Amino acid sequence: MTGKAGRVPESSAVTESARLRRHDPGRRERLIDVAISVIAEHGVTGTTHRRVAAAADVPLGSMTYHFVGMDDLLQAAFTRLATRTADVFDDALSSAGSRADAAEAVVGLIAGPTLNEPETILANLELYALAARRPEFRTITDAWMVRSRDALHGHFDTETALMLDALIEGTTLHRALSLDPMPVSTVRAAVGRIIRP
Amino acid sequence: MTGKAGRVPESSAVTESARLRRHDPGRRERLIDVAISVIAEHGVTGTTHRRVAAAADVPLGSMTYHFVGMDDLLQAAFTRLATRTADVFDDALSSAGSRADAAEAVVGLIAGPTLNEPETILANLELYALAARRPEFRTITDAWMVRSRDALHGHFDTETALMLDALIEGTTLHRALSLDPMPVSTVRAAVGRIIRP
Repeated sequence: MTGKAGRVPESSAVTESARLRRHDPGRRERLIDVAISVIAEHGVTGTTHRRVAAAADVPLGSMTYHFVGMDDLLQAAFTRLATRTADVFDDALSSAGSRADAAEAVVGLIAGPTLNEPETILANLELYALAARRPEFRTITDAWMVRSRDALHGHFDTETALMLDALIEGTTLHRALSLDPMPVSTVRAAVGRIIRP
Repeated sequence: MTGKAGRVPESSAVTESARLRRHDPGRRERLIDVAISVIAEHGVTGTTHRRVAAAADVPLGSMTYHFVGMDDLLQAAFTRLATRTADVFDDALSSAGSRADAAEAVVGLIAGPTLNEPETILANLELYALAARRPEFRTITDAWMVRSRDALHGHFDTETALMLDALIEGTTLHRALSLDPMPVSTVRAAVGRIIRP
């Protein structure tokens, strides 16, 4: 791209960006989705702008335009991952008409497809490891837990919501990593014990 | 190392190995411990024989002698990590003299130092991600869960042991990743609800 004499590099970048945006307005959104898949497949350490660009079939320059650096990309990808799952929690729990329905919705979240989708499990674990390693990413895990607990709090008291949120985490994870996963009846019984008045 | 004419590469390796072993009999054990630290710091993807050798201050050849490849090293490191934690579970629960003591031992495991040591949290999450990504590593997570549940089963019925094991996982993880971790009183109340007859 040829700039006019005297044009500063920033404005050249902006022009390039404007061109990219014009041609593919949803590109940033799509790159974030692709980044989640790349993180699930290669881990945070194996995720590079180059790898995401290749997976999304866009030029590498598109990555540097849309994301300031790797942390910006990770922040965007994990925020979306958390938001996506929190939305599913919200939907499941807001449509429950009673406490018993809400309990069954919790069982459905633990045993159902959303949390058990391999890409989701892997990307979640990558987020947890990143947040454990670098506390600045705990704003994402914390905000996510706050949303999950708020959704649960629509049906249960604050303390019970905290307990259920932890139980959901532990049962989902153990079922995913076990060769003989605990049956849904045990999940249901555990939820029942936690919410029993 | 110069081999005699006609000597097969294996016997040359064995001689070198014998020499290494003679000089440092606990080397393999030490390399496994160092590998756990390297995995915690750099993740599975960032762990290489070269990095572990450098961290342990041994020649690279020592790694290739002691471990057939990266999977062998990961297998050894994660098996030790799981064994170590399962031993702590065993100790805590076998010394509990009553059901109430056992419940308090569970609270102590969740809130105490062992499971909350940063290296342990990080290495555990790396193991979970590896097991989620590559099912052959689930023999390690599964054997670990079996041991934890057996320890719990000394005081609680099988189903309750499953539930407690999942609760320990979820509460430990959420406390580690939260900006405002659930108080120990909530942990204790959750354990109480799960074990309530």
